[in-house]
Amino acid sequence: MSGLKPEDMPMPDAATPSRPKLVTACVLLIGDEVLSGRTRDANLSYIAKHLNQIGVQVREARVIPDIESVIVDTVNEVRARYDYVFTTGGIGPTHDDITADSIAKAFGVAIGHHPQAMAILEAHYAETGGEFTEARKRMARIPDGATLIANPLSKAPGFQLGNVFVMAGVPMVMQVMLDSLTGRLEGGATMQSRTVSAQIGEGTIAQKLGELQQRHPDIGIGSYPYYRGKTFGTSLVMRGTDPAALDRVADEAAALIRAFGAEPVVGEPG
Amino acid sequence: MSGLKPEDMPMPDAATPSRPKLVTACVLLIGDEVLSGRTRDANLSYIAKHLNQIGVQVREARVIPDIESVIVDTVNEVRARYDYVFTTGGIGPTHDDITADSIAKAFGVAIGHHPQAMAILEAHYAETGGEFTEARKRMARIPDGATLIANPLSKAPGFQLGNVFVMAGVPMVMQVMLDSLTGRLEGGATMQSRTVSAQIGEGTIAQKLGELQQRHPDIGIGSYPYYRGKTFGTSLVMRGTDPAALDRVADEAAALIRAFGAEPVVGEPG
Repeated sequence: MSGLKPEDMPMPDAATPSRPKLVTACVLLIGDEVLSGRTRDANLSYIAKHLNQIGVQVREARVIPDIESVIVDTVNEVRARYDYVFTTGGIGPTHDDITADSIAKAFGVAIGHHPQAMAILEAHYAETGGEFTEARKRMARIPDGATLIANPLSKAPGFQLGNVFVMAGVPMVMQVMLDSLTGRLEGGATMQSRTVSAQIGEGTIAQKLGELQQRHPDIGIGSYPYYRGKTFGTSLVMRGTDPAALDRVADEAAALIRAFGAEPVVGEPG
Repeated sequence: MSGLKPEDMPMPDAATPSRPKLVTACVLLIGDEVLSGRTRDANLSYIAKHLNQIGVQVREARVIPDIESVIVDTVNEVRARYDYVFTTGGIGPTHDDITADSIAKAFGVAIGHHPQAMAILEAHYAETGGEFTEARKRMARIPDGATLIANPLSKAPGFQLGNVFVMAGVPMVMQVMLDSLTGRLEGGATMQSRTVSAQIGEGTIAQKLGELQQRHPDIGIGSYPYYRGKTFGTSLVMRGTDPAALDRVADEAAALIRAFGAEPVVGEPG
């Protein structure tokens, strides 16, 4: 809940060298199982934290069903809008895994069995004694022009096509795929944060907090109520790209809390 | 990951009385804290399961930042596309809570202090001894024409405007608000599911499973690999509106698994 407006967002613009370049991303979680509530998504927060460490900011996420037309339209909309798009889900061997074909359709390219992906899977099943069935060969279907994303864990690769990175839905597989991408992504400024918490109500400090935000438009200040059994309070999260400015605003936030008679703690409430 | 295509989806159409009416929803999770990875969303799966019980299917979810223009554009896009829209987050007393004002802007209506909301909050702070500050009065700002959504827990209400339902982001508050809506929502067919799991690889059964899906186009069959320490397997989830058809497909799925020498269990793996 930062106070950043679109017009305040630092843009990648050579004419404003004093503002750090922000690199943006959209995450698409593809799968009926997340929409039905069967599976609680575990990927978005991991991806968001990981990407921020390498200077890529997730600015939107969508959960969409396994319907080809929806995947095609959504991918084409968001790949034009963000620097990077990361998808999870739908690249397994079964009939309901339609992400690779949908991405090919979105880009208007053909799709077929990728020689390197076939070799990886063939070696894997030879080693484990499993049969390399037609269904498993589906996992080597990669859109023309895509480059593979390594999967050291279960072998079946993801792929990158343009600025779209297609990964598995199983969290531990997704995580090794994301790890392997670090060198391929060009990050910009890293968003850093400071958190100050206190046993005080949001409504008590809201007015002064709004004034603090107005004095520091380059720092996004979010206010998050928390409940811990019978105690409650507020965590203030300062986000921005300038560490010194963040420290200053965090100090001011702590002073603001003290002025209302509460004791600020650095970080999340204990 | 069902095999349902848009053209297969039962549509609310009087000319096809044999197909049950599907009522659709989109969930908007509003908040920088979810996008930054600070907070792992706990609301989507709860909302999806709760709504399905009353015959409303979540077909899409989006996580968007606290930026007015993004909220306005997204709300206007999805309220035209789905029967219902449910938002969470951004209705507190601080400067970063901009959901109510953004919804008013999306609908092109004015916003002000709602008399009933003011009375509820005034009574609450009189009872608890808290000061009813200007900031706390912000929580009574409701777009013109909206009706309130009760909040028995922390009093500050949500609201409904048209087909958009605006709720709190704190899960336990969101949940009581959602509970209070049951009578106001007109549900259609309830999507039911059957789950059959076994210690067998997806790739082993994929071919036969695809054939099973083709024989039963009205039932969406999803295949989800799972890992439990050193064991792994597959959960098959059948979803549809006809309980008898679901039972038949679940029986066929169990038989399919047995034909490969594995033992199916009803439900998620133990």
